[in-house]
Amino acid sequence: MFVLGIDPGLSRCGYGCVEHGRKPRAVAAGVIRTDSSVERPLRLAEIQREIRTLIGELKPQVVAIERVLFQQNATTAMSVGMVSGIIMVEAVSAGCAVVEYSPNEVKLAVAGWGGAGKDEVGQMVQTLLGLPKRLKPADVADAVAVALCHVAHMPASRAAGALR
Amino acid sequence: MFVLGIDPGLSRCGYGCVEHGRKPRAVAAGVIRTDSSVERPLRLAEIQREIRTLIGELKPQVVAIERVLFQQNATTAMSVGMVSGIIMVEAVSAGCAVVEYSPNEVKLAVAGWGGAGKDEVGQMVQTLLGLPKRLKPADVADAVAVALCHVAHMPASRAAGALR
Repeated sequence: MFVLGIDPGLSRCGYGCVEHGRKPRAVAAGVIRTDSSVERPLRLAEIQREIRTLIGELKPQVVAIERVLFQQNATTAMSVGMVSGIIMVEAVSAGCAVVEYSPNEVKLAVAGWGGAGKDEVGQMVQTLLGLPKRLKPADVADAVAVALCHVAHMPASRAAGALR
Repeated sequence: MFVLGIDPGLSRCGYGCVEHGRKPRAVAAGVIRTDSSVERPLRLAEIQREIRTLIGELKPQVVAIERVLFQQNATTAMSVGMVSGIIMVEAVSAGCAVVEYSPNEVKLAVAGWGGAGKDEVGQMVQTLLGLPKRLKPADVADAVAVALCHVAHMPASRAAGALR
């Protein structure tokens, strides 16, 4: 089964699709960018279209989204929340299950501790998926990490120790 | 032309449609409710469906949304942001213009000062639209107030003093 991980954002929204099997396999990864000179509703609509296409092509069973926290400024957090909401309803419309993980849960699952930095997460994503090089920008690695976090939380994975 | 005002919320999302003419006229008003025992993505999808139907039926030219602030707790604000984002993209998909007004702008336009309470706003909405009774719950009156705020901001209205 495919898990589509999302690191939501208005300027850069990372996505990473992982196949859950004996060993997790990277299927697709990238970033949706929107132009900050465009009005927010139009940028959100652009993300909606891209995500709809992505879900239509990849047909994931699960969409895993990084939960928005309020570390950044309120306006940024609100835009990220809007993106998250749009992705949730696109996922529901396509019949996908939707799960959310906090940044700490993602870091804990992928790098072994909740305080891991972006570098460690990027390194572990590369290692876990056996990729020839690091995923860039960090939003892409983060999105894949969210998908891997969900894989790690699936009962079969825990039994098999799929990630570690 | 029709302006659809929205007071976004996950449990109760108020809407109010006003026709902009010599004197603003109420066209439709109500509240979309979702069940708090249901998972958030499904509640968001429910709101999306209802808003899509509403926009399809009313065919507003403009969707005016009350901007989310962070007076409440962060989780509530985030859910309200998600609802706002979803409504924005539904409006864009339907070819509507999207505008946002802060709660203070709405109160200023409708009640004459930014510190007006819910009661004053409700009373003024009733008076401005010549309604036989107050709109309830407050979310409905607030949504109509957002639509009236946009009407007040339109150049022709300002010249004609449509609201006052």
